[in-house]
Amino acid sequence: MAKLNENFSRLEKNYLFIDIAKKIKAYTAAHPDAKLIRMGIGDVTRPLAPVVVEAMEKACREMGVMETFRGYEDSGAGYEFLREAVSGYYKSFGADVSPDEIRISDGAKSDCGNIIDIFGAGNTVLVTDPAYPVYVDSNIMSGNTVIYADSNEENGFAAMPNPSVKADLIYLCSPNNPTGSVYTAAQLKEWVDYALSNNAVIIYDSAYEAFITEKDIPRSIFCIEGAKRCAIEICSLSKTAGFTGTRCGYTVVPNELVQKDSAGNDVKLADLWNRREGSKFNGVSYPVQRGAEAVFTPEGQKQTHEAIDYYRENAHMIAAACDELGIKYTGGVNSPYIWLKCPNGMGSWGFFDYLLNEIQVVGTPGAGFGKNGNGWFRLTAFGTHEATAEAMERLKKLLK
Amino acid sequence: MAKLNENFSRLEKNYLFIDIAKKIKAYTAAHPDAKLIRMGIGDVTRPLAPVVVEAMEKACREMGVMETFRGYEDSGAGYEFLREAVSGYYKSFGADVSPDEIRISDGAKSDCGNIIDIFGAGNTVLVTDPAYPVYVDSNIMSGNTVIYADSNEENGFAAMPNPSVKADLIYLCSPNNPTGSVYTAAQLKEWVDYALSNNAVIIYDSAYEAFITEKDIPRSIFCIEGAKRCAIEICSLSKTAGFTGTRCGYTVVPNELVQKDSAGNDVKLADLWNRREGSKFNGVSYPVQRGAEAVFTPEGQKQTHEAIDYYRENAHMIAAACDELGIKYTGGVNSPYIWLKCPNGMGSWGFFDYLLNEIQVVGTPGAGFGKNGNGWFRLTAFGTHEATAEAMERLKKLLK
Repeated sequence: MAKLNENFSRLEKNYLFIDIAKKIKAYTAAHPDAKLIRMGIGDVTRPLAPVVVEAMEKACREMGVMETFRGYEDSGAGYEFLREAVSGYYKSFGADVSPDEIRISDGAKSDCGNIIDIFGAGNTVLVTDPAYPVYVDSNIMSGNTVIYADSNEENGFAAMPNPSVKADLIYLCSPNNPTGSVYTAAQLKEWVDYALSNNAVIIYDSAYEAFITEKDIPRSIFCIEGAKRCAIEICSLSKTAGFTGTRCGYTVVPNELVQKDSAGNDVKLADLWNRREGSKFNGVSYPVQRGAEAVFTPEGQKQTHEAIDYYRENAHMIAAACDELGIKYTGGVNSPYIWLKCPNGMGSWGFFDYLLNEIQVVGTPGAGFGKNGNGWFRLTAFGTHEATAEAMERLKKLLK
Repeated sequence: MAKLNENFSRLEKNYLFIDIAKKIKAYTAAHPDAKLIRMGIGDVTRPLAPVVVEAMEKACREMGVMETFRGYEDSGAGYEFLREAVSGYYKSFGADVSPDEIRISDGAKSDCGNIIDIFGAGNTVLVTDPAYPVYVDSNIMSGNTVIYADSNEENGFAAMPNPSVKADLIYLCSPNNPTGSVYTAAQLKEWVDYALSNNAVIIYDSAYEAFITEKDIPRSIFCIEGAKRCAIEICSLSKTAGFTGTRCGYTVVPNELVQKDSAGNDVKLADLWNRREGSKFNGVSYPVQRGAEAVFTPEGQKQTHEAIDYYRENAHMIAAACDELGIKYTGGVNSPYIWLKCPNGMGSWGFFDYLLNEIQVVGTPGAGFGKNGNGWFRLTAFGTHEATAEAMERLKKLLK
């Protein structure tokens, strides 16, 4: 008789965005003429950059000609051309990552979930709360024990290590989803020192690094001394270049990242990750890899930054409306997210319903990201200028 | 201190194809002018069909225009248009699979490895030997116990169930990789009955179904009565339509597939799989899904079958050479693989070296697929006519 993975029954019954989708569906069924403005799910809306489209089209045509057709990649780790490009990108903001430390994947969500496979049972996993639900869910599925570090109003939603707490794996995300908060270099150094002193491994989600504008905020944990001995970094082109539907990301497992096994032998974590991916993954679509390569060309950087600048203007608009209304928030700078305190002591699902029913604006209830999200709410800057402006007008009219 | 997954140390040190690549590298370094003919790794060589390239190019252009841009898929299970197309494809060979039982993925290897996540610890996993190494490796990584059913010369490399052996998960592959053997409907019915009587789950790899020519050989396990209550099927467009570098596959978890958890409650396996994928996967690239959709159009079927027919001619050439030389083999019909008995009692790595050194033909040693592969050897029909004919001339000259 097949035994099932009963850890699945410990998961929260429904995924946050599924609940939201259901509420929206019910509302629009009852109000078919309502003009909803969606500022909930963190999906982009600007199209792919022209250089990316051109590169992908060209690669598709190559696949149709015998001489230029590409089958399996030798290693499945990503073509050299793309790993070189990512390595050069890291260099551009001061992080030294060599191409052989990079594996290309179909996205940060896959790597974030699958990286758990290289770790054994019995790890204590520290997650900052609130957090992207995948960190918790993938660890619960694996039967790991999850503990939390509080990100809250007092610490600007940037939890710091507590030396008396012993963790084996640590998830950090900066710029943060959902709070938009960022770690300074000094703060990250504290986390790196904490990890090194505990022989812990940091899993660092840098999916939003392209939104960083402030010069002293690190774009990668590998800008921090010592990080290559304790951290894995996962990034994606979803937010960098609008690849949410194109699917491409990358994970860096540094060659210096070594841990002891139970017999006291040194094990390179990159070897485990390469073996995991070598057995359960077969590489990313060739045309997608060519599109990703184009992102890192000078023209690609120029074009993709136009979209990021566009979203930044939206973020400023949302932040300005909050300022005007006296609403507290984090994010909006270095981030496409504004994380705001629900007015009048409202709970975050209550505020969700209030905005949906009263002004047909859809956001994301902070409670969906952890207990410290109660009473907080996430708005995203990924819409159009017009829709964002309209939503802020409705908000101001409602709350003034 | 981070604990590592020490099951990884139980894996065979090197992956079969890495060993082969090393031997080829050493040989070509020593003999830079040698004209190698590669009939080893199961990669295709014919380009993508024109309708597929056109569909992908069009989708890339859509991604460059705001009005037609696509971001995250709602469910990540695959667009309705593609799941409908796959469902229609199943119908064309007599299997009733509804779109909501299908999840689109980046390939069979990923699904084959990741499906393990929904099963708990302590399962006894039955693998026919020889087999595709991923079945064994992914289970060893998860700490499962693997037992084997012998596929050998006596049973035509088509292992059948032994009622005295109790298995919880069963891997079957037909047409088989590496042996090219196929199960008849009657044989598959025996496996289904065995699984049902043991409350076991069959993981059925149908990656080579498009090569089936004989009318009475099932193209899917779901052509068999009762299979929807005990089987999961994993398939891919890699061999069907040359998608080895384009990356698209699909997995069917039937709605009727229900197992008891330890408390005796019914659990739909599709719910577990959807939750696993919903948390650790974010869907397949939109242009790739449009390319896959084109495969299942009448024109797409016509064009992709031209490539399959091309490979079939190669298979016939290889089979004819074996016949002429009096070499025993399975496959070559319903399969792009010829699985042959090494002549003169040679071991399979010995025969590999012999062919590489004497006639510069590269095949795959059967020993790499399990103990019953010792003394056997896999040749693939994925080359050009010219190279295949040349290799067979060299082989005949060598062995006559």
